[in-house]
Amino acid sequence: MSLIIQKYGGSSVATTDHIRRVAMKVASTKIQGNKVAVVVSAMGGQTDQLLSMAAEISGSPSGREQDALLATGEQVCAALMSITLESLGHKAKSLMGIQLPLVTDNVHTRARIIKLQTEIIEQILSEDTIPVVAGFQGVTEEGWISTLGRGGSDTTAVALAAALKADCCEIYTDVDGVYTADPNICPKARHINIISYQEMLELAGLGARVLHSRSVELAQKYQVPLVVKSSFGGEKHTWIVNEEEVMENSIIKGVTLEKNVSKISIIRVPDRPGIAHSILSPLAEAAINVDMIIQNASIDGYADFTFTIPTTELEKAKELVGQVAREINAREMLAANNIVKVSAVGIGIKTNPGVASRMFKSLSEENINIEMISTSEYRISCVIEEKYGELAVRAVHKAFGLDKVSKEKTEA
Amino acid sequence: MSLIIQKYGGSSVATTDHIRRVAMKVASTKIQGNKVAVVVSAMGGQTDQLLSMAAEISGSPSGREQDALLATGEQVCAALMSITLESLGHKAKSLMGIQLPLVTDNVHTRARIIKLQTEIIEQILSEDTIPVVAGFQGVTEEGWISTLGRGGSDTTAVALAAALKADCCEIYTDVDGVYTADPNICPKARHINIISYQEMLELAGLGARVLHSRSVELAQKYQVPLVVKSSFGGEKHTWIVNEEEVMENSIIKGVTLEKNVSKISIIRVPDRPGIAHSILSPLAEAAINVDMIIQNASIDGYADFTFTIPTTELEKAKELVGQVAREINAREMLAANNIVKVSAVGIGIKTNPGVASRMFKSLSEENINIEMISTSEYRISCVIEEKYGELAVRAVHKAFGLDKVSKEKTEA
Repeated sequence: MSLIIQKYGGSSVATTDHIRRVAMKVASTKIQGNKVAVVVSAMGGQTDQLLSMAAEISGSPSGREQDALLATGEQVCAALMSITLESLGHKAKSLMGIQLPLVTDNVHTRARIIKLQTEIIEQILSEDTIPVVAGFQGVTEEGWISTLGRGGSDTTAVALAAALKADCCEIYTDVDGVYTADPNICPKARHINIISYQEMLELAGLGARVLHSRSVELAQKYQVPLVVKSSFGGEKHTWIVNEEEVMENSIIKGVTLEKNVSKISIIRVPDRPGIAHSILSPLAEAAINVDMIIQNASIDGYADFTFTIPTTELEKAKELVGQVAREINAREMLAANNIVKVSAVGIGIKTNPGVASRMFKSLSEENINIEMISTSEYRISCVIEEKYGELAVRAVHKAFGLDKVSKEKTEA
Repeated sequence: MSLIIQKYGGSSVATTDHIRRVAMKVASTKIQGNKVAVVVSAMGGQTDQLLSMAAEISGSPSGREQDALLATGEQVCAALMSITLESLGHKAKSLMGIQLPLVTDNVHTRARIIKLQTEIIEQILSEDTIPVVAGFQGVTEEGWISTLGRGGSDTTAVALAAALKADCCEIYTDVDGVYTADPNICPKARHINIISYQEMLELAGLGARVLHSRSVELAQKYQVPLVVKSSFGGEKHTWIVNEEEVMENSIIKGVTLEKNVSKISIIRVPDRPGIAHSILSPLAEAAINVDMIIQNASIDGYADFTFTIPTTELEKAKELVGQVAREINAREMLAANNIVKVSAVGIGIKTNPGVASRMFKSLSEENINIEMISTSEYRISCVIEEKYGELAVRAVHKAFGLDKVSKEKTEA
């Protein structure tokens, strides 16, 4: 008898009709002889509705109260899901984070899990009852309701799967898994059957948007096999597992386009130790996430220093960096937001030395100028002009043979 | 420094604008040098909305899941109230029943309070912070969310006032207190400034609808001074206190009309011991609340037996009693639902022997026939034909001098 954790996102439970459809899926998993625990998000739109009520009152509600407010969304959905399962003849019990309890730190609105007690949920499972857990939420050690931030319900599901040593964690969403590229940009994008945690992290971090990085990291840490499926049916799905279990290792697994990118350059910085630190530490203090950093070779004691940040942080970053630039006597600061980042991701990169040059060649053949480059074990990223973004994705996708329908040998 | 518990009902917190207005009232109570704890109901309409979602799914959701669902209504309102108080510059913390905790028995949808822990709320108060408690809800000893049933938020407020030994418990509602009669029926009805728990219980139980009996009983038991005020402003209010504190004791405090009344008569019942029990016990088992009971004097070994029940239970009661009537060889069963109950309520009844006859006289002067009579220490009730109900209220109201504007001497 397998123990399966199933997580259903907001669009999968948007209405009571959706909930009924999803409950039938849960029930059929149980009827097939499995133990099932369910994690639900708030019904689609509910969270925004609660936030807009809070916004009517205050521009800056305290994190604690905002969490208490938002946690009701998942609680409503968990209770309705339990009622639906009961109406289908199954025993079910809904649980809030505070009831498990799922204990978090006290960083409200983006709390991290400290521990997840399993006694109550194991008791429920042993009574042949389906636990329905309100995702996204926990309780601080002081007893206040907390929420886990973006992708929180996925994180709840993976944490539950890890704590219960579940056989797998199924994430039901409005897509049927991960593709080699965004099909809206690249019509020849193909569905990926199986991918490693590491590759998924690079894809998710770059905007694949199927799963939040945090839940993939947690799954990797506790070796929880994850599978992404569509809650609207269909046979396709994507397994996310250990690198060793991915038998069919194409060099590149996918190509992504990240749009919310801006760059700031500081020109003719006196090149002395500590300069990078003095430029970047004000940004770190302001919690601005600096991504790619390039410092060119020093010429006559001066260097140019360029980095990328999310466009949403550009104005704030310009202000902070502008001040530093004056203090360190740099010649000038330049900023641009008409850029994008194209990345190729795959386990094969670290063992195939020619991968980077194949990517650069494909871009140059389309006359696309590369402004910045960064690489990691699993990823090569190029910053290019925004207008070439989609073209670049298609070119790189084709260059690595992802357009071709391959015989996928592995199906977990 | 006084400790005041303020409870705001659904219509007082129907929108974020309402919540803001109410929060200003809370804040001003605090600014005047009091400690304040707030209890809130769900925003008006919210509970119905949640129930209708459950009804879309199931005709008979389990009590446990229905409670988990409905408890979110008060939680949303408590969080929004805290956010509002924070935006007004006050420290506030919202609390669910499970967080206090307010522990109840496990009779879901109408749980009774077992104990209310005060440590956390006293800690909050000691930090110069306003606790905002989600009313209506608790947690069972097994850890499931429970709700207290009708009038539940009033009960929470009174329980909190009792546990914290508060100086008083203010119940804010959409009316400004209790009247000598329903002003819609009796235009000369007057506002009551002060009334005893006992009188209020008789009035509330008879449909005055300002406060649920349960909260008044609790207030009486723990000697919590209650005051009912309008959340929409105005100077009027009604204190509900101990009998001894009601200085101005008019004989009759108010006149009420109860409409949801039916009667069943069993004619020519063989009069032997245990007959009343055999007629009424099936009703008790079916949780049908029998109100007035009359058994006439036995003539030649047969008696007639009549009782009243809520009209909503009439069909079920007819079925149960019809069966008993056959078993005990009664001649026939008669049922009627075109009746109402008019009651005069007041502490003065027990010490003024002429009260009952004054009431009967006022009805007879209007040619209203009395079908049944019952009396208690604080109440005289007459069952009459439905069509005379409003006329009877006005007649009795006038007969006891309630029409006249008296100089109310006491103001607590």
